[in-house]
Amino acid sequence: MTIQQVDDLGAVYLAAENDRVRTHTAVLLTVDPAALGGGRLTVQRLRELLRERLDLVPAFRRRLAGVPFGLDRPYWVEGDVDLDYHIREVALPEPGDAELLREQVARIFSRPLDRSRPLWEMYLVQGLTGGRAAVLTKVHHAIADAQAGLQILTALTDAEANPRGRPVPSPDPFAPPPAAASMFLRSLGGVVRQPVRAMTRLPAALSGVDELPVFGSMPGARLIGATTALLARRRRHTPIARAPRTSFNRQISPHRRIGFASVALDDVRAVKRHFAVSVNDVVLAIAAGALRRWLLDHAELPERALTAVVPVSLRDPSSTSVGNQLSAVVVPIPTDVDDPAARLGVAHRAMLSALRDLGTTAPDALTDTIRMVPAPFLVRTVQLLTRLNAWAPLTPAMNVNISNVRGPQQTLYLAGAAVESMVPLAGITDGLGLNLTVMSYRDNLSIGIVADRGQVPDVQRIADWMVAELTLLVSFGAR
Amino acid sequence: MTIQQVDDLGAVYLAAENDRVRTHTAVLLTVDPAALGGGRLTVQRLRELLRERLDLVPAFRRRLAGVPFGLDRPYWVEGDVDLDYHIREVALPEPGDAELLREQVARIFSRPLDRSRPLWEMYLVQGLTGGRAAVLTKVHHAIADAQAGLQILTALTDAEANPRGRPVPSPDPFAPPPAAASMFLRSLGGVVRQPVRAMTRLPAALSGVDELPVFGSMPGARLIGATTALLARRRRHTPIARAPRTSFNRQISPHRRIGFASVALDDVRAVKRHFAVSVNDVVLAIAAGALRRWLLDHAELPERALTAVVPVSLRDPSSTSVGNQLSAVVVPIPTDVDDPAARLGVAHRAMLSALRDLGTTAPDALTDTIRMVPAPFLVRTVQLLTRLNAWAPLTPAMNVNISNVRGPQQTLYLAGAAVESMVPLAGITDGLGLNLTVMSYRDNLSIGIVADRGQVPDVQRIADWMVAELTLLVSFGAR
Repeated sequence: MTIQQVDDLGAVYLAAENDRVRTHTAVLLTVDPAALGGGRLTVQRLRELLRERLDLVPAFRRRLAGVPFGLDRPYWVEGDVDLDYHIREVALPEPGDAELLREQVARIFSRPLDRSRPLWEMYLVQGLTGGRAAVLTKVHHAIADAQAGLQILTALTDAEANPRGRPVPSPDPFAPPPAAASMFLRSLGGVVRQPVRAMTRLPAALSGVDELPVFGSMPGARLIGATTALLARRRRHTPIARAPRTSFNRQISPHRRIGFASVALDDVRAVKRHFAVSVNDVVLAIAAGALRRWLLDHAELPERALTAVVPVSLRDPSSTSVGNQLSAVVVPIPTDVDDPAARLGVAHRAMLSALRDLGTTAPDALTDTIRMVPAPFLVRTVQLLTRLNAWAPLTPAMNVNISNVRGPQQTLYLAGAAVESMVPLAGITDGLGLNLTVMSYRDNLSIGIVADRGQVPDVQRIADWMVAELTLLVSFGAR
Repeated sequence: MTIQQVDDLGAVYLAAENDRVRTHTAVLLTVDPAALGGGRLTVQRLRELLRERLDLVPAFRRRLAGVPFGLDRPYWVEGDVDLDYHIREVALPEPGDAELLREQVARIFSRPLDRSRPLWEMYLVQGLTGGRAAVLTKVHHAIADAQAGLQILTALTDAEANPRGRPVPSPDPFAPPPAAASMFLRSLGGVVRQPVRAMTRLPAALSGVDELPVFGSMPGARLIGATTALLARRRRHTPIARAPRTSFNRQISPHRRIGFASVALDDVRAVKRHFAVSVNDVVLAIAAGALRRWLLDHAELPERALTAVVPVSLRDPSSTSVGNQLSAVVVPIPTDVDDPAARLGVAHRAMLSALRDLGTTAPDALTDTIRMVPAPFLVRTVQLLTRLNAWAPLTPAMNVNISNVRGPQQTLYLAGAAVESMVPLAGITDGLGLNLTVMSYRDNLSIGIVADRGQVPDVQRIADWMVAELTLLVSFGAR
């Protein structure tokens, strides 16, 4: 039996949390329970399902064991799973419409996960219009990125309403928490070695830190990189990105709002074919169009284009390990272009250029850089970087997070109930108070938007405008 | 215009909070909306009511303005009140029974209030059986004790379903937040003076600290008092209380469970007359009986009686100021007595003795002691005391909090809906993970119990057993 240390990006996600910033993600399923006994999905049935399949989802059994005084990264250990705690039932007031669902989901999404338990929660939301129920699953980014989240979803759902049963692998228990003393000693070794490594490597590494895709997307990295480069008079490979500061690029509150919408994948594919671009280009273009409308509406459209951070998975498609294998590119999105078709062309070329740059970065540079920060300083470093990102005198490196996740193509069944839609939701942070995630499911592309409650009170309009922007692009193709 | 500093006990309540301990209270109203338009109480109507009456409830408009670096007590300033944030609507899943209500209320009660906003929240809970709705109002102890909470309730309700309107006093706005610099300077004066005062008075004051009723009920005070007295070889007036350590006298988690029940006031009065005791004695006796059953059931009944901390209001009945005017007595409750009638007699004599001791304590000693702690050390001091209280090697000073609040005698109407019941809920802390509060309303006495989720999973049984214990005492009187 081995204990498992939190992976590098997971440690950063944990360190980035405070009383306002949370780094969990969520997926909101709408299910039709008509075919179930009593026409109802019960919380007992959901708990039963999880009890049956918990051995398929190791990430749901892990809890954090900290090292005394934070001298080393925390470890994952096998945790007790109190399903009565993790799986909860709530209901919407009448009429149970989408607005009430968004309000309820925003409140649940705003709240932190309990770090003394496995880092997930599942809410069965009763009382949606049309006899529907919703199931909201919150998962900490430290236990699963988007791809790993999809693997968890696959383990908990079936391809048919009444499956014959599924293969159940033998459980793979984690080690019990190592005695505090032994963890303490193990981490001391790291502390002794790491400052030496850090001192020899720090100046060179930090001056290039914002050229590394994910680290560059980490708040404040741009500032540190630029300052250190200046001090070291080191030549930089890439120009420093400059993004305008908008309402959603300030310090965030603990509270969120969410918006969601759905478009037909066929419409997206028609636009993609007509303009010879990728699905991701279409997503960036309609996001830029919707943000342009929002910024115009709030009389704060900057002359320069906004800059988006777009996660790119480094995960081997055949990988079944759960955790974070993620990079990201920082790309301008054409909020400064008025014509929808021209906007799509600009988005396409910007993304091509960003992906070309990514190819020239050594894949290990990111993890090397994160490993270089001695554990006792990781939390403070990440918190400092996070705060710097919202500091008004600085030019932010990016404005908005836009992710695109490929979801299941076939209908899934949760505890026998058909899953009708699937909305992805991801976290926001200081200086980056708006997150747009799209995910495909069956014949649709779902749009899930998370924003700070005060910064974007009308976040649903951004979702609706993305739909309107796609309709415009479709009409170009139909001409 | 003046700004107002947080009062002494309020500062302690704020300092005692951490990621597990919250010091808010709540009241849960059940209302019958049958007489309203549409037979329904809407969240819009509740928000409208609060908008109309916010000028009657200054405590609901105050938010905290901290002094930089925590160098002085925080101040209250006039805060924006975003009623869409503070007043929320949720619903129970079917069948909307008492168990589902308790689960929903426990989750809401577990969560902290947002310190950047006025320290209250109101939840309209739809979907109770019988067409009823519930209204849960959470209020931080720093803005109101139980009596002040009742004044707030009075301001928000009416004595009839359709009142002609109520006198509306002119608003009394607070000052805007003082500039950080001026607050900083003001607190520096205190820092300079206070250590001198503290150094001259500390040894004498600390050795008697656990003899002061409320401070003695503060976690850890007993230890500090005893240690300092030993060092100072000072003679003590009172013997040190010794309470057994039970399951609910350990470190608490962030999660709560609640239980509630109701008994007829006529039954309580019949027992009171028959045994010539007070209503409060009856409450202590049935609480002791219920706790005895619970401890027997969990095979952990200690030989010695448990010790309860019982708040006593120091508030002048004519006072209309909102804030904390509270003391408390620490009293043994007869969990070691098997016979219900004998138990009532023992409880009666113990309470008489405790109240006699309270009369001999100078009323200003408590506030003097709290004022003596320099502000920069207040949070750390209170947090240390709180943790010490749950430290296993120590003998706890008390086991359970039992409060008795006199509520309204007449039927109240909230936004036109008759209030049918009123359950009080109060906070728990490390080492003191069980709180029993009773409140009278109309012809009933409501029992509200708050416990740590893991320590007392079956908390509702304690409420049910209190009802059973009263029935037993009534049967003695009827013989």
